[in-house]
Amino acid sequence: MNAEDLAQEHIRSLSPYAAGFQPQGDGWTKLNTNESPYPPAPGVAAAINGELDRLHLYPDPTSSGFRRAVARHCGIGEDQVIVGNGSDDILNLLVRVFGGPGRLTGYTIPGYSLYPTLIAMGGGEGWAIEFDRSMTLPVASIVASATQLFFLTSPNAPTGVVFANALISEVLRSYPGILVVDEAYADFSGENAAALLADHPNLVITRTLSKSHGLAGLRVGYGLASPGVIDLLDRVRDSYNVNRLSQAAALASIADQNHFKANLARVLKTRETCSTFYRDLGWFVYPSSTNFLFVEPRDGSGRTGPGVSESLFEFLMAKKILVRRFPSHALTSGFLRFSVGADSEMRILNQAVQSWLRKE
Amino acid sequence: MNAEDLAQEHIRSLSPYAAGFQPQGDGWTKLNTNESPYPPAPGVAAAINGELDRLHLYPDPTSSGFRRAVARHCGIGEDQVIVGNGSDDILNLLVRVFGGPGRLTGYTIPGYSLYPTLIAMGGGEGWAIEFDRSMTLPVASIVASATQLFFLTSPNAPTGVVFANALISEVLRSYPGILVVDEAYADFSGENAAALLADHPNLVITRTLSKSHGLAGLRVGYGLASPGVIDLLDRVRDSYNVNRLSQAAALASIADQNHFKANLARVLKTRETCSTFYRDLGWFVYPSSTNFLFVEPRDGSGRTGPGVSESLFEFLMAKKILVRRFPSHALTSGFLRFSVGADSEMRILNQAVQSWLRKE
Repeated sequence: MNAEDLAQEHIRSLSPYAAGFQPQGDGWTKLNTNESPYPPAPGVAAAINGELDRLHLYPDPTSSGFRRAVARHCGIGEDQVIVGNGSDDILNLLVRVFGGPGRLTGYTIPGYSLYPTLIAMGGGEGWAIEFDRSMTLPVASIVASATQLFFLTSPNAPTGVVFANALISEVLRSYPGILVVDEAYADFSGENAAALLADHPNLVITRTLSKSHGLAGLRVGYGLASPGVIDLLDRVRDSYNVNRLSQAAALASIADQNHFKANLARVLKTRETCSTFYRDLGWFVYPSSTNFLFVEPRDGSGRTGPGVSESLFEFLMAKKILVRRFPSHALTSGFLRFSVGADSEMRILNQAVQSWLRKE
Repeated sequence: MNAEDLAQEHIRSLSPYAAGFQPQGDGWTKLNTNESPYPPAPGVAAAINGELDRLHLYPDPTSSGFRRAVARHCGIGEDQVIVGNGSDDILNLLVRVFGGPGRLTGYTIPGYSLYPTLIAMGGGEGWAIEFDRSMTLPVASIVASATQLFFLTSPNAPTGVVFANALISEVLRSYPGILVVDEAYADFSGENAAALLADHPNLVITRTLSKSHGLAGLRVGYGLASPGVIDLLDRVRDSYNVNRLSQAAALASIADQNHFKANLARVLKTRETCSTFYRDLGWFVYPSSTNFLFVEPRDGSGRTGPGVSESLFEFLMAKKILVRRFPSHALTSGFLRFSVGADSEMRILNQAVQSWLRKE
């Protein structure tokens, strides 16, 4: 008997999602998974310590304290919020409810590369719409797609380009499915889609505390939607999906808006400086509304392309500088994605880039 | 447009799992969800504090430190272990891989009541096999069932009865599907099925740190199986399912076997004393291999049954003593489940039971 033969066919043929490399040792300049270089709010450690004598007790199953704080922060009802073990948890629930066998789920290329994996896990079909280099939102293609669910990363990953609410509204007005606006990076942008929730019951917004709140290690994200959609997502949610320490930490983090805004300002300042640095080298850099830069390396001879970006990637890796490349698609294969780290980390990166330029 | 109409049919008709009531205020004697009354190992708090300056970094995606420790503890390979956000996470992954549309998944009544919810979430069919009051394992019925996946809680919940390895082997030898032995409570028993893994690639064991390790608030569980089955489960696992603090805490907890064994001994001693107390009242009490007692209350007039157990449940609830009842099935509706708490909590419970007896 071969136990593996008992698995569902679509699982046996599934390629697992490739998460960014997470080195566990020291000495790395880690600019590959868009973590915050700054510590979370000081209240976070205190909140975690305040829970240590209750570790033996199950957490609040609906994360109600944090849920209430998010609702207040966004000016919506508590019944419009669901809290997840990272926003990946919410994305997974969305596929379980609105995707599945015999259903078509849309996403864009480029976009967050987890979507096609989640769709395949659920046994549904994926429908990819490709951006061209201008990164103009293909409103008509989304609206005309036969999908029941569509994932749009805005600001987009890995390009960093944000889509204006005016365009998202245009999709929502005509698209007959559920549009998920994945706002993992929206805190770094001037724009987010929360104001559109009131008029569009088919809008779902997902967010994470992993990036702008500096809490990637804790796995907290949330979804915003109409109460009816939240109720459906709740039915497939694990009863205790977010643990006691993560709930307490998330609540403390969202409560300290001063710390949050100060860190945000530092990231935006560094992003600006680095954008200028790479543009001054003559590189194409997408306008970033995130905490990363998507750059098209140009070598000393003025060449660009997949070979050039790979050469720089390997050069940086040899110096223990981790960045991210996306070799599987023509639009992204000539680029690299650099997380916006601390100024000291960006100096290490930029100096390494200059060494590479001299070497090439 | 009604967004809810876009959901998959089996999700729209899903009844969500009813988790045990988790009161967030003080003053409760909480004996309803089998949490440990004792603090976790002292090293747990230190391990959590040791991670506080790395909260901004993603956790190890495969929980490799804890996974290695579990493998060593169980005398199996690291590739035979998967770590979950509670063992519920692993149970969910099992249904995603081996359940699903057009498939039949088995479970027993009574048993952990999450299984039918997970099966329904996955769009598959459930196949329940009912125990009779003797709680004899229906080996032939399991083997003859047309299921591809079967969940067996051993020790059983909510009765507390353990099934001997000899019987589980008998199932494994002839059952052509995946047998999941859910050992959430096995630490409280003299028996567990780990030794059967070597000979049976169709055996999966799930365990949790929520009960015997006193870490319900942290959500850590694990699964043990053949490398091929673990690989399949890993494909549908969220990349960062267990957060940084939970991984560190779990590792510290499993490393301190002295603390673990001391707490276990206290639970077993209290369980013994309480079993005797209820048997001395003339109540039927299942032999418990867990940290709870499943008792059949008998009122002052010698009556038993659903009305009697409900009367005691309500009486206790009014005194802020939380226990659990299982009214949906004839075999369990006349019973109540009492978690084995600290001796002081059991005194409060036992005194309340005596008041109820005088009142009835």
